[in-house]
Amino acid sequence: MWKIVEETFNPEKQHHKETVFTIGNGYLSTRGAFEERFPAEMRATFLHGVFDDAPVVFTELANAPDWLELDIFLAGEHFRLNQGTLLSFTRTLDLRTATLTRDLRWRSPRGRETHLVFERFASLAEEHLCMVKATIRPENYSGRVEVRAGLSGEVDNLKLKHWDWVAQGVRAQEAWLQVKTCATKIELSAAMKLSMTVPGQRSHLTRLDVQNHPALAVSSNIKSGETATVLKWFTQYTSRDVKNPLKDSRRALQKYLLQDWAQLWEAHRKAWESEWERSDVIIEGDDEAQLAVRFNIFQLLIAAPRHDEHVNIGAKTLSGYGYRGHAFWDTEIFMLPFFIHTRPEIARNLLSYRWHNLPGAREKAKANGFLGAQYPWESAGTGEEVTPTWVPNPADRTSLIRIWTGDIEVHISADISYAIWKYWQSTGDESFLLERGAEVILETARFWSSRAEWNEELGRYEINDIIGPDEYHDHVDNNVYTNALACWNLKTALDLYSWLKEEHSSAWKKLNRRIRFNEKELEKWRHVIEHLYIPFDSQTKLVEQFEGYFQRRDVNLAKLEPRTNSVQALFGIEGANETQVLKQPDVLMLMYLLPDLYDHETLLVNYAYYNARTDHTFGSSLGPSIQAIMACKANDEGAYVHFIRAARADLFNVRNNAGDGIHGASAGGLWQAVIFGFAGLEHTSAGWMTHPHLPEGWTRIAFKIVDHGKELHFDVKKAF
Amino acid sequence: MWKIVEETFNPEKQHHKETVFTIGNGYLSTRGAFEERFPAEMRATFLHGVFDDAPVVFTELANAPDWLELDIFLAGEHFRLNQGTLLSFTRTLDLRTATLTRDLRWRSPRGRETHLVFERFASLAEEHLCMVKATIRPENYSGRVEVRAGLSGEVDNLKLKHWDWVAQGVRAQEAWLQVKTCATKIELSAAMKLSMTVPGQRSHLTRLDVQNHPALAVSSNIKSGETATVLKWFTQYTSRDVKNPLKDSRRALQKYLLQDWAQLWEAHRKAWESEWERSDVIIEGDDEAQLAVRFNIFQLLIAAPRHDEHVNIGAKTLSGYGYRGHAFWDTEIFMLPFFIHTRPEIARNLLSYRWHNLPGAREKAKANGFLGAQYPWESAGTGEEVTPTWVPNPADRTSLIRIWTGDIEVHISADISYAIWKYWQSTGDESFLLERGAEVILETARFWSSRAEWNEELGRYEINDIIGPDEYHDHVDNNVYTNALACWNLKTALDLYSWLKEEHSSAWKKLNRRIRFNEKELEKWRHVIEHLYIPFDSQTKLVEQFEGYFQRRDVNLAKLEPRTNSVQALFGIEGANETQVLKQPDVLMLMYLLPDLYDHETLLVNYAYYNARTDHTFGSSLGPSIQAIMACKANDEGAYVHFIRAARADLFNVRNNAGDGIHGASAGGLWQAVIFGFAGLEHTSAGWMTHPHLPEGWTRIAFKIVDHGKELHFDVKKAF
Repeated sequence: MWKIVEETFNPEKQHHKETVFTIGNGYLSTRGAFEERFPAEMRATFLHGVFDDAPVVFTELANAPDWLELDIFLAGEHFRLNQGTLLSFTRTLDLRTATLTRDLRWRSPRGRETHLVFERFASLAEEHLCMVKATIRPENYSGRVEVRAGLSGEVDNLKLKHWDWVAQGVRAQEAWLQVKTCATKIELSAAMKLSMTVPGQRSHLTRLDVQNHPALAVSSNIKSGETATVLKWFTQYTSRDVKNPLKDSRRALQKYLLQDWAQLWEAHRKAWESEWERSDVIIEGDDEAQLAVRFNIFQLLIAAPRHDEHVNIGAKTLSGYGYRGHAFWDTEIFMLPFFIHTRPEIARNLLSYRWHNLPGAREKAKANGFLGAQYPWESAGTGEEVTPTWVPNPADRTSLIRIWTGDIEVHISADISYAIWKYWQSTGDESFLLERGAEVILETARFWSSRAEWNEELGRYEINDIIGPDEYHDHVDNNVYTNALACWNLKTALDLYSWLKEEHSSAWKKLNRRIRFNEKELEKWRHVIEHLYIPFDSQTKLVEQFEGYFQRRDVNLAKLEPRTNSVQALFGIEGANETQVLKQPDVLMLMYLLPDLYDHETLLVNYAYYNARTDHTFGSSLGPSIQAIMACKANDEGAYVHFIRAARADLFNVRNNAGDGIHGASAGGLWQAVIFGFAGLEHTSAGWMTHPHLPEGWTRIAFKIVDHGKELHFDVKKAF
Repeated sequence: MWKIVEETFNPEKQHHKETVFTIGNGYLSTRGAFEERFPAEMRATFLHGVFDDAPVVFTELANAPDWLELDIFLAGEHFRLNQGTLLSFTRTLDLRTATLTRDLRWRSPRGRETHLVFERFASLAEEHLCMVKATIRPENYSGRVEVRAGLSGEVDNLKLKHWDWVAQGVRAQEAWLQVKTCATKIELSAAMKLSMTVPGQRSHLTRLDVQNHPALAVSSNIKSGETATVLKWFTQYTSRDVKNPLKDSRRALQKYLLQDWAQLWEAHRKAWESEWERSDVIIEGDDEAQLAVRFNIFQLLIAAPRHDEHVNIGAKTLSGYGYRGHAFWDTEIFMLPFFIHTRPEIARNLLSYRWHNLPGAREKAKANGFLGAQYPWESAGTGEEVTPTWVPNPADRTSLIRIWTGDIEVHISADISYAIWKYWQSTGDESFLLERGAEVILETARFWSSRAEWNEELGRYEINDIIGPDEYHDHVDNNVYTNALACWNLKTALDLYSWLKEEHSSAWKKLNRRIRFNEKELEKWRHVIEHLYIPFDSQTKLVEQFEGYFQRRDVNLAKLEPRTNSVQALFGIEGANETQVLKQPDVLMLMYLLPDLYDHETLLVNYAYYNARTDHTFGSSLGPSIQAIMACKANDEGAYVHFIRAARADLFNVRNNAGDGIHGASAGGLWQAVIFGFAGLEHTSAGWMTHPHLPEGWTRIAFKIVDHGKELHFDVKKAF
């Protein structure tokens, strides 16, 4: 179960399938668009960290010069799937080798039939190398086959251009292009070479040196039944990577030209073999689940920066325009556990990104009148807040919609500290904690100590006017998830402070030169920890999601079925706000992250209450996987329904927005659902233990995790 | 005085000079960017009516595939002015022949010196033809000279792309490209041919068929001191013009290829000769004024649609991105008089555009709860309102600025009727009035009858909460300009109605089938005309611009000098609103348009009052030319200061925004200032008379106008 296979080409599903057939190597990802193009495609290649300014969304990953382009002319006829007849079609993504293959037979408008096979990979062994191959076999004609391929600097992001031309060249051995992002001035240089091999024939090479689109063409005469093999080598570097991207990309090209497809692919395959050795999860008894889990792990692996600690993973990974490459808490809470437990080096890179961006978070806290570091809700290249503030209203072009998350969805600062703590607990990476992690935890604690508002009348601290994870309710007071995480952040910082001072005084001194900590702050911290209001009704054991939530209108969700839209879309933003319906369950999320806060009975009571009030189908894509885990904990047989909803999010396009890119948090949550839900992995005083809740039909779950550098194997089998 | 000459190239003035050196033929205009490109250029070609959707501004003229492109390689070195050394440089726009020439000597980074001359014209004789020529003379080397030129579909509007690729081809005789606007689906097809002639040498042609940028290359060996002549023929059609733009552009190319540069240019030159014969204004005794007036007339002529009655002239003509090609009252009140009196066929086209767009104006009236037709403040392809509603706030990215003109700057509906009436008076074009003009005048009158609000208490009609021409004051009540023009519109409609019924009953019946006029409406019209409040203080003879204006804070403008910014920029939008400072003088404008409303003494009193309170330097670019006329009427010697400010608006970039495009209203106003101000042309019972107010130094103004098809010559000379 390693192959995602598409047997028919349906242009209406084009964008969805482009997302599904995305490949990548942690440096870039490329959507599954066709080499020869197709009308209305959303062709895109995104490189980590290559952001440029854009209206409304402030900044976005700039779609990079395309490496796939192959324009094919068959005896003079231009090969295009929107013309002629498609006689057969299979597209296959092999997850094990991260290789995309398209095998098709096409009849041209003039009746020429050709068998074409396309293969591509973005090398995991050499992240600056991408390769594409086409084999072309005329079936009922002989004639000249020509393939043109270039490097176009004219790419755009949904019509917005991000690149200025700098220079280019075309030689017999290569074409190269140097461009620069318009606002952020990131240089990108790419080089390519094209070859055609036809047994017994000489192929001809032409240089096509056209402004901002340098290209090469190869052609040869070919007889019916014979095969032409076309290879395209592509290399690229940016000024984020090296000092002289042009020199390095041209040099890399010359180096890789010494190897053929088989050699380059073998190195790539081997790299993936070792990747899967550490990360694979084996599920027996449920083929769909097995394939879906691997597909989602694959999405995490191709988006994971292996050699760059200045970038994060966007909510839609690198696979689409959704959220423009901006990173949210999706990384720390949903995706990071997979990396912490299988690829801690990558988790370290991702958390280091947050540390590097402390200046942006400090700036935001300061601008809002707070201490310490307030992380942006949406974060991109520089760590400043990049959540759009106003977006067009599709229903009325004279008005705009205000997006509040960037202003008041504050829990992310605690989520980041939480993730750092989890990383530290699992890895014991002391140098990271001392040099980077502690600074984030202390600075976010500072933020919370100043963000909490003292209510003189009630003698308590409150955190008011915010948005919790459940975004159907905004401008709420004392959201329990936020308050509890803030309190945890302060407590953890307090302990950390003592530990640092006592056991790592020289590291503390170094750190304190940066943060200039005043002992008096501790008093305030303790006061906030003791008096921060965290709603709980000890009688009913119900945890009220935020103050006044229980007074909101209760809606019988079953009565809205069947529906094809979210409750927010049905009721409107204000309408949904007035109900108890949740986009995702804050209280259960809190119980998942901080299980020691509540006893099992409380968990059961709240599971029953909130499960019935959550928009599972069209609410947040972050919800289902966590819901599956909590269902396991509550012994609810509905766990699999939630799990499979997350598993299908992108493969089946269940939310109709897979075309915008992979739901990264859902992918990360799916891994957690298998490991912490169905396998029931738990860290106890006796070490890691599993408490399996295997779904019906599942006979086995096998996986590995790394704990303090040691690989642990787990093999959970159904007892018959 | 026919030539605009630039003797040095200053990259900092690049955008300003691109505007100044714009050429065009009434079908398209092309900014004066360099054939070989230059970094940060704002290269653009705009075709009338080729609008496409865009964020914020709703719709904009789509920058069309570039026809200028010439990439020149001199013995392998890429010719670019941002490299090497510029040894000499002259750029000349010959207004008489609408030909742009650039003559330069360049030393390459490797020391090769070349003399290059570029010439271009957009044929006025054949509006689908554009020609560019380069002559290249190596001065201190011999070698291969290569020129590559193509058709790029990858053009953008300040980074926003508007074109989807459809098809392309490259043959020895031509390259062609077919593209389509993304949202509005307007097809554009262009074809081109490239040739190189070197005496005694064979030149070599290469085809460069690269996706979305089909190109040709010509090359030849050339000896030091010899000259290569490169010609590029370019033709284009859109689906706005013909059914099959691709066929027509390719056919046209083949036709024009039978002629050489000299023949094609001669036809173009002749067309301009006849243009100037009708439109030229001779000024003696002031060379700067002579050249500036011709430059501004030239701008009107190249923007004037000669064969298209479905388009208008944008506020920035076709010469830049400012206002995105949208048309305002600038056309009817400022530019149209020039066309009415010299090229009435063009005036007819422009007014027909408004008639064709009546459906949009009716829609707007209806949406706002009014009768008849309410014209959009900004109008583009369809006649719907396209004024942006919200624009980014450069000072604070979390907030936006609301633009109110599209909602409440209502005077444009009367301005359009006024222009139609003026056209009719001057041309006697009865068929236009009966079939088109009357419908607009009656429908706008209907609008005013419903827009006027009855004030029971004061027993009068009012027009409240609007913006008058003076945009420093918004949300004002009873703006005198608006109320008086509305009243004029109603009165004119009333007279027109009687005349139609009595003298053109069959035309009236036909018209009435469309507008379904109810006789009862006349009562309401008469009631509004009699009771519409038009502020006037018979004691002081002061006309209050709007109710409460005299209570606003009076500012001594002299005390703000010297300044480099508008009063609105200095005081803020709200701050300026609270003062009496004007962006342009509504009351004087009214006295100019409807001179019979007030006696001469009233004019003098109000001239003195408002002249002192107008932001002449950085207020509206529409102000100075009208101010010059009113100064003549008031015998104020300041007239010339206002005139020369308008004359220099674009040539000297006095407002620092000439890079956004030509100030079309200022250009039209300048012609009016000379004719109705300095020459003092007036229509009296005895016919057209001049009452000259020649500025100091001027010895002669000579010009022609057309009256009812008859050409009248005027030659005003200073009496010594």
